[in-house]
Amino acid sequence: MPLQDHMHLISVDDHLIEPPNVWTDRLPRKFQEQGPRIVEMDMSQNSGDEGLSALLLETARQGKAAPAAPKLAEVWTYEGRIYPNIGLNAVAGKKPQEYGMDPTRYSDMLPGCYDPVARLADMDLDGVEATMSFPSFPRFAGTVFLEGKDKELALLSVKAWNDFHLDEWAAAAPDRFIPQIILPLWDPQESAKEIYRCAAKGARAISFPENTVGLGLPSFYTDHWDPVFRAAEETKMPLNMHFGSSGKAPMTSPEAPMAVMIALFGTNSMYATTDLLFSPVFYKFPDLKVAMSEGGIGWMPYLLERIDLTWEKHRWYQNVNKEIRPSDIFRKNIFGCFIDDFEGVARRHQIGIENIMWEGDYPHSDSNWPNSRQYTEKLLQEVPDAEAHQIVELNARRLYNFPRAN
Amino acid sequence: MPLQDHMHLISVDDHLIEPPNVWTDRLPRKFQEQGPRIVEMDMSQNSGDEGLSALLLETARQGKAAPAAPKLAEVWTYEGRIYPNIGLNAVAGKKPQEYGMDPTRYSDMLPGCYDPVARLADMDLDGVEATMSFPSFPRFAGTVFLEGKDKELALLSVKAWNDFHLDEWAAAAPDRFIPQIILPLWDPQESAKEIYRCAAKGARAISFPENTVGLGLPSFYTDHWDPVFRAAEETKMPLNMHFGSSGKAPMTSPEAPMAVMIALFGTNSMYATTDLLFSPVFYKFPDLKVAMSEGGIGWMPYLLERIDLTWEKHRWYQNVNKEIRPSDIFRKNIFGCFIDDFEGVARRHQIGIENIMWEGDYPHSDSNWPNSRQYTEKLLQEVPDAEAHQIVELNARRLYNFPRAN
Repeated sequence: MPLQDHMHLISVDDHLIEPPNVWTDRLPRKFQEQGPRIVEMDMSQNSGDEGLSALLLETARQGKAAPAAPKLAEVWTYEGRIYPNIGLNAVAGKKPQEYGMDPTRYSDMLPGCYDPVARLADMDLDGVEATMSFPSFPRFAGTVFLEGKDKELALLSVKAWNDFHLDEWAAAAPDRFIPQIILPLWDPQESAKEIYRCAAKGARAISFPENTVGLGLPSFYTDHWDPVFRAAEETKMPLNMHFGSSGKAPMTSPEAPMAVMIALFGTNSMYATTDLLFSPVFYKFPDLKVAMSEGGIGWMPYLLERIDLTWEKHRWYQNVNKEIRPSDIFRKNIFGCFIDDFEGVARRHQIGIENIMWEGDYPHSDSNWPNSRQYTEKLLQEVPDAEAHQIVELNARRLYNFPRAN
Repeated sequence: MPLQDHMHLISVDDHLIEPPNVWTDRLPRKFQEQGPRIVEMDMSQNSGDEGLSALLLETARQGKAAPAAPKLAEVWTYEGRIYPNIGLNAVAGKKPQEYGMDPTRYSDMLPGCYDPVARLADMDLDGVEATMSFPSFPRFAGTVFLEGKDKELALLSVKAWNDFHLDEWAAAAPDRFIPQIILPLWDPQESAKEIYRCAAKGARAISFPENTVGLGLPSFYTDHWDPVFRAAEETKMPLNMHFGSSGKAPMTSPEAPMAVMIALFGTNSMYATTDLLFSPVFYKFPDLKVAMSEGGIGWMPYLLERIDLTWEKHRWYQNVNKEIRPSDIFRKNIFGCFIDDFEGVARRHQIGIENIMWEGDYPHSDSNWPNSRQYTEKLLQEVPDAEAHQIVELNARRLYNFPRAN
């Protein structure tokens, strides 16, 4: 009988919507105008964000009616740029038939999206004990601040998000919120300093891009990221690589419905896993841990077999390690999580029982809120107690150094 | 006991290297100079092909010593453009330690690469009864002819390859070679005509790009390809979509070794499968069949679960069929094949026993030649007789309308 009462669900991938005061409360007076803040805007004509949100938004629009006449929305503005979709994909509590209409006002969303106390109530409803959330407006790995023209403001804005997450969000219930941070990615030294600063304040994980090349930054094959990886290893903070954090979305055709991209997003995690396993990262930093956030797990047995076979046949003439089988590196250094993944659960021994975690994805459309616990019970029906406990709770507590309080 | 003597191995994905006379024997005199032909060239300075071959070549070079001084090679020339690597990845019979050095002369290769009689002897050695081969110089789906400036020459060149395959290659042993054709992809009407012409001559399959958008052509969501799909359906010729035939390779980082791309190539087939299942193609042409050539099968259970779930939640607000579950379409219309894929074999019932075929990949580096039969016996050790027979032989005979002769 899986999911007995003493087994807690820990979600290693949820999302928070930043409340309007994250930056206005923390930036100095001189940056109040240029720093991120919420404004009202007629969005019937406008779509300013050029990142993944815009991509999702644009694709989502296909097959929907044209937007109606003047429509006031709450949007983020940052250095004069407009970032719409304050609540991109924040559809928890809506029926699938209502998806596709992202909330444009805080009042459209469940308060649990942006208020930690309301979030706790929503977690209770859902049977979830603890949660780790990713940013929304700054994007999964805070890459919006790479666009900042004023790097002093950008650095302060990164620190403001981290301080908000540590001092306000997670502080609301330190035994139920696992705090993670974002980095000033344009500066690896500064990023390392931010890791040490936040580790001292209790941070447990770092949101880091699944691939840095598409962001205009050096790859995992260079020495560029060594200060970051060293700091992460030393502070025992895993890197969470959320799918989509590279700024790349799996697109097939201009006319393809958004369903194609949603179904294929796990391939981003396959790319990242393969890239890392053939890179020098885990040789240089053998105790660094990486989690493929929201990537699913059902593909892992196939990919590990394929990677090992490629390594068997092709390592000789390439700049690839000759000694350690990539799947052995995987089991020591890479972790996955799932929401709905009967196939991955069925093949859990091929992946590694210790490498699998659960996630809720609140408040996004993949979430089963408020039925996560019932749904997960069904998913783990055939799994022995001890394994189910590892998957839903113990692996996350160990990886994120987040022991049970009581 | 799998693979009993009466079970024949049919490989649905092998490769032939065009002998030098394919086009010179068939093109009219006025095109002898501009049409594809073999020339000797110093390749120490030059790399002309801008397609996938060049991509592979360029990546393969990383981690290898710089090429030595003047090195004469046999290369294809077509309308003055140079296409090196006559035997790209034609490494059958070499040890993994020798990979990475593509043959640059016909004399570097096994004669079975370009000579059908020698191929039969290599198939006998390998325990393979029948084979279907893809082009090499024209690329998997003949897309090199999209580059042709003179479309009269390009059309004649496509027909020449098809006539070579039907009249010379497959004619050497009609019960052991399954002939497939390429299309003049720049013209759907002309492509349909070529399908009917070749069907009448005994062709059994069509090599078609896994994605047309990257080739500068309309997507599967448009009506553009209807003449091709209709002709394929009417002539009962499946479309073989070989991974890489879109001209796109899965690249992660400029410095990544080629191993990353090799390990990830199956994601191209995941893209194509998802694209097709959410497209109108199988609604318009319900009896059209598509094979994901060289794509592997171990990912299929994961992807089908993910696609169905996406369809469950996201079909309402998008231009996606509301009635038929994508995995049901898959089982009727899409087929996969494998070389090394213990994971896929273990999950064969989740994929569909009738949707799985075997391939040898001769003479490429993924091939287990000359030990394909022994290797496949090991791979199918736990599989009941009747299922093994379907996988290695019967599914291919049914899909490609290629009944046993004796």
